[in-house]
Amino acid sequence: MSIDGMGTPEIHQNASKATPPSEGPEAIDRQDPDGEIAGRARAYRNWGRWGDDDVLGTLNFIDDGKRREAAQLVRSGRTVSLSLPFDMDGPQKGWRRRTNPVHTMLDTGTDAQMGHQGFPHGLGGADDVIAMPLQCSTQWDGLGHIFDHGTAWNGRPAGDVVTSDGDLVTGIEHTAASFVSRGVLLDVGRHLAPEAGRLPDAFAITPEHLDDTAQAQGIDVTRGDIIVVRTGQLARAKAEGWGEYAGGPAPGLSLTCAGWIHRTEVAAVATDTWGFEVRPNEFDVPAFQPLHQVSIPNIGLTIGEMWDADELAELCAEQSRWEFMLVAPSLPITGAVGTPVNPLAIL
Amino acid sequence: MSIDGMGTPEIHQNASKATPPSEGPEAIDRQDPDGEIAGRARAYRNWGRWGDDDVLGTLNFIDDGKRREAAQLVRSGRTVSLSLPFDMDGPQKGWRRRTNPVHTMLDTGTDAQMGHQGFPHGLGGADDVIAMPLQCSTQWDGLGHIFDHGTAWNGRPAGDVVTSDGDLVTGIEHTAASFVSRGVLLDVGRHLAPEAGRLPDAFAITPEHLDDTAQAQGIDVTRGDIIVVRTGQLARAKAEGWGEYAGGPAPGLSLTCAGWIHRTEVAAVATDTWGFEVRPNEFDVPAFQPLHQVSIPNIGLTIGEMWDADELAELCAEQSRWEFMLVAPSLPITGAVGTPVNPLAIL
Amino acid sequence: MSIDGMGTPEIHQNASKATPPSEGPEAIDRQDPDGEIAGRARAYRNWGRWGDDDVLGTLNFIDDGKRREAAQLVRSGRTVSLSLPFDMDGPQKGWRRRTNPVHTMLDTGTDAQMGHQGFPHGLGGADDVIAMPLQCSTQWDGLGHIFDHGTAWNGRPAGDVVTSDGDLVTGIEHTAASFVSRGVLLDVGRHLAPEAGRLPDAFAITPEHLDDTAQAQGIDVTRGDIIVVRTGQLARAKAEGWGEYAGGPAPGLSLTCAGWIHRTEVAAVATDTWGFEVRPNEFDVPAFQPLHQVSIPNIGLTIGEMWDADELAELCAEQSRWEFMLVAPSLPITGAVGTPVNPLAIL
Amino acid sequence: MSIDGMGTPEIHQNASKATPPSEGPEAIDRQDPDGEIAGRARAYRNWGRWGDDDVLGTLNFIDDGKRREAAQLVRSGRTVSLSLPFDMDGPQKGWRRRTNPVHTMLDTGTDAQMGHQGFPHGLGGADDVIAMPLQCSTQWDGLGHIFDHGTAWNGRPAGDVVTSDGDLVTGIEHTAASFVSRGVLLDVGRHLAPEAGRLPDAFAITPEHLDDTAQAQGIDVTRGDIIVVRTGQLARAKAEGWGEYAGGPAPGLSLTCAGWIHRTEVAAVATDTWGFEVRPNEFDVPAFQPLHQVSIPNIGLTIGEMWDADELAELCAEQSRWEFMLVAPSLPITGAVGTPVNPLAIL
Repeated sequence: MSIDGMGTPEIHQNASKATPPSEGPEAIDRQDPDGEIAGRARAYRNWGRWGDDDVLGTLNFIDDGKRREAAQLVRSGRTVSLSLPFDMDGPQKGWRRRTNPVHTMLDTGTDAQMGHQGFPHGLGGADDVIAMPLQCSTQWDGLGHIFDHGTAWNGRPAGDVVTSDGDLVTGIEHTAASFVSRGVLLDVGRHLAPEAGRLPDAFAITPEHLDDTAQAQGIDVTRGDIIVVRTGQLARAKAEGWGEYAGGPAPGLSLTCAGWIHRTEVAAVATDTWGFEVRPNEFDVPAFQPLHQVSIPNIGLTIGEMWDADELAELCAEQSRWEFMLVAPSLPITGAVGTPVNPLAIL
Repeated sequence: MSIDGMGTPEIHQNASKATPPSEGPEAIDRQDPDGEIAGRARAYRNWGRWGDDDVLGTLNFIDDGKRREAAQLVRSGRTVSLSLPFDMDGPQKGWRRRTNPVHTMLDTGTDAQMGHQGFPHGLGGADDVIAMPLQCSTQWDGLGHIFDHGTAWNGRPAGDVVTSDGDLVTGIEHTAASFVSRGVLLDVGRHLAPEAGRLPDAFAITPEHLDDTAQAQGIDVTRGDIIVVRTGQLARAKAEGWGEYAGGPAPGLSLTCAGWIHRTEVAAVATDTWGFEVRPNEFDVPAFQPLHQVSIPNIGLTIGEMWDADELAELCAEQSRWEFMLVAPSLPITGAVGTPVNPLAIL
Repeated sequence: MSIDGMGTPEIHQNASKATPPSEGPEAIDRQDPDGEIAGRARAYRNWGRWGDDDVLGTLNFIDDGKRREAAQLVRSGRTVSLSLPFDMDGPQKGWRRRTNPVHTMLDTGTDAQMGHQGFPHGLGGADDVIAMPLQCSTQWDGLGHIFDHGTAWNGRPAGDVVTSDGDLVTGIEHTAASFVSRGVLLDVGRHLAPEAGRLPDAFAITPEHLDDTAQAQGIDVTRGDIIVVRTGQLARAKAEGWGEYAGGPAPGLSLTCAGWIHRTEVAAVATDTWGFEVRPNEFDVPAFQPLHQVSIPNIGLTIGEMWDADELAELCAEQSRWEFMLVAPSLPITGAVGTPVNPLAIL
Repeated sequence: MSIDGMGTPEIHQNASKATPPSEGPEAIDRQDPDGEIAGRARAYRNWGRWGDDDVLGTLNFIDDGKRREAAQLVRSGRTVSLSLPFDMDGPQKGWRRRTNPVHTMLDTGTDAQMGHQGFPHGLGGADDVIAMPLQCSTQWDGLGHIFDHGTAWNGRPAGDVVTSDGDLVTGIEHTAASFVSRGVLLDVGRHLAPEAGRLPDAFAITPEHLDDTAQAQGIDVTRGDIIVVRTGQLARAKAEGWGEYAGGPAPGLSLTCAGWIHRTEVAAVATDTWGFEVRPNEFDVPAFQPLHQVSIPNIGLTIGEMWDADELAELCAEQSRWEFMLVAPSLPITGAVGTPVNPLAIL
């Protein structure tokens, strides 16, 4: 199964239609986002599964045993960062006040060298400041990031959870010790498009694509895994410029993956794209990020976006080994609904 | 050797005088910071050790083998965050424009619930922004943070390294994959003051204190380790309020530890204090952070500050085991001289 | 009438009781903030007075004739700024995430002088950035700043006016050309306390105090004026340190001034205090800024805070002339509920 | 003299060559920016003119008499703001870390209406924060903004003036009471291109153009005036989108205007463009903002950029009157090298 040479998204979308998802609703009615979302929300909702007070959602699938298993995957010790650099050359263009990170200096080496700092005994220093949206670059979406009809994770009213004081209930600080698990790379871009190494924009990755990739890679997805889906879009952006990377057309997960996510009991899923799911979304009427709407407030899934999996993909291919220890700590900003992250894959 | 009940810093300083450091210059001339710093800078300078182009300093001591060894330390999988929460309740009071983190929302759940967002099919969202000094809370000091007489790490002119465009040479982004190693907790507070569990302000921790603690804990410090020195000051601040935690009197490393740091070939050292080294510094004339001046630009040491090791200390004491896998990824902000960090100890 | 030597706020509060306000409700029931506020809100509400679409409130009292009159007050041309400097030495201490302004440089003269900028033909430059709450220093409170039981100016639901996207209706940008008028200084501090030149904390300025001061100064308050009430608190803060200036005890307007504000048809009122009205507020049960609650959403009043009227007061006293042209332009930040301002008095 | 229908910048540049500037060096050698700049810097340098300690430069031309004269120009009282709105829809695209203003809310009306704020007696509030470059929209360039070969205004070494602590000498706070004067609009766009109402990109406005416009408008430029030069570029940007407004091709002042600026003894000059001077600059070799280099550090001129003079131009044309009272207060940010400004023209 290869899509190399596929000229247009239309082709794949037909293909996608031809291979109906194996979960829940069998096909997407492109006129009915409300129905398609509501059906999956009902089918895959995890509310109450970890108690009324839960603040972690599917991160609960990671337990001490899982973390121990993750550490045992380390063979060479080789470590790869999956983070983009955080700077003004990032993908943001101002949509919804999202800028690239603005990093400024409070003190500099030029000042120190010219003797402007006033410290004793030849000491000099440099300090700095950052101003940035928490979702501007490589990130985790927290459970307070998305609501479904005014309802947040675990069935709470959105307005009781996230006010202008931040996320009062499921703030990212609760995940401070959560992001250590077995990581699995599903390099769908390489599997489906071995020549190009990347999927075209608007390509919807279905559960079958995920399973096929896993099978081809000879790996099982298991409870508590953190899945990294590589589409190859970021590699193109790095080579050709950001273009419309932030919010524009992109390959990504199909809404039909909601069932796969629910069934596999993975702890989190990250992609190398801006928006996790396929863009434009799979509807002929106005729609926006329907898989987020099912996954975050209903399944309780934490989502990673803008993860750079290119170097990791090279290593995994070389070693024909697609599992590793993944440590991707949130920055515990009290009340945050997202966090920048530098995910480390330790092989 | 216990300092419990020690009423005043003076007492301990005499004690400190009475037990001269085992490294380099045998005692500190409290009238001569220039000489004390210059002697240690010369003695322990690592310039050129990893080539003229080096940007990592002692982080070079961590290699794949070390990371593999670190992973093998994981037994239970139990994971502890050593990070403070990042919020306005932090220790900063405005010194040198260092504020606590200001976290604001771009979109909220109240807006979503009241229908003000305009997304289709019942989608709602929350987004957020942070403005903060990179050194405002739990952090790594990068190699561009401190200069010695206008000279940065590896002998480079400070003004060629850190301009208002940031650290052009040793920016924290180079450490993106560096912070995975064996972690060792030296709970000096508990060892020297078993009843109080914490050292008094102005207590200078000498190499002998470090070695005694390691010996009492039954652990060896080895090349490439990331050392976490717990003084107990942060526990007090959490219990009693920040007070002068940011810049005020504190227990911390003595300048005489420079030789210990150099000899042990540790990769990095972190403390639970604002400033790593003892405050006030060990001079009777104006002085400011002399151990920084020796360690960062000369030894090439990366320093951690404001690490919360209290929960970790409890666990280590329970298990009588003071080593663990430590993963403490920098946030790869291009050109940064420091980084907030959420260090994870995996036991 | 003088309060010089008044030792305690208690004394003045008795005095305040002894001189009941001449407007509306004759005295304040210190157990009933709800009633006291509601009565005044009903009595002085200007909703609909300038049409259903109004976004300016009492600024409508300033018309071209008033501005012409203001210009005609200019005699010497001497101009005085009523602004504090905007920097980290300001009064904020972090309450509700209000910090002092953090000003950082994007480029510096040291970098330019050392040749680090890369511009041709010897050009060098410096650029800068600010991060600050709009209410951190000398400021105008916009009409979206305060709500009364969920209702904003002109009777609009607060949630329809100010979302996390800002003030969608009465944003400060609508006032871009508004703040030119006759200014009148009422130097209550000097009038009531001629020796100290300032009122004690918790001193409640009543309408009678305002009228007495105007009479003593030989000036009439007229429709459309911008009134600057000087208590002297800021002079003390400048001399003795900010202390609890931001939110702590302060002299200021009594709730009973609501009627005076309504009757005089002034366009705006500013004080040299953090909070405009007397602090603690005039109730024995929990209360917070009741005059704001009556004035902003009900009267439609724009309020100035932290205006430094000390130099102006000296000039006015020298010239025995308390009126001037006042130009105090908002910074038209779209959707802002407040604005920093540098008010200029042109005499 | 009209340029309507002028197809290309080339044409006007020939024309510009054909009408050599009446000041100083007679024509520009397009191969020699160093020489062209140096000659004008020497010829027009005002160093020492107002003493060695001067921090105001040509703003010294505004005295009390000038301000009085300005006030006397007010006839109708009609007031016009020359400020753009400050928001994310501004012209910035990230060049040198210049973003558009990011305005976020600390508290909102939705939160207040939903009862999330916890204030007593029905009080609700909204607060906000701004993060923005000081040069991101309508602004004044301060005297510390530009250097000539490492030298700042009045001959000071740039590194002694602007460090990472800001402008220690000529910070914008010194201008807090400065910007009140007679304003003169020179509507060069309307005069030279009466049909289009705007000049083409790359059109260099010469001293002759300025004088012709003044003469056609029947107005004299006098000492201490604040001159607003309207090219019409901003009107196009508002109609057609920002495009390359920030840094791209634009009409603007020719380098040859340096002599005009010096001779007329104007206090300040502002334009409706991003960069004040013609872009690309008038050289065939790499060059960047040569008129800034002559004007700011040598002449001591304060420069206004991105001023919106379109509404003002309409009024002036209607009344055939091109002078007015101009009040354009800086925001006195300590150490700033620029300031956002809301300039008010009072007619």
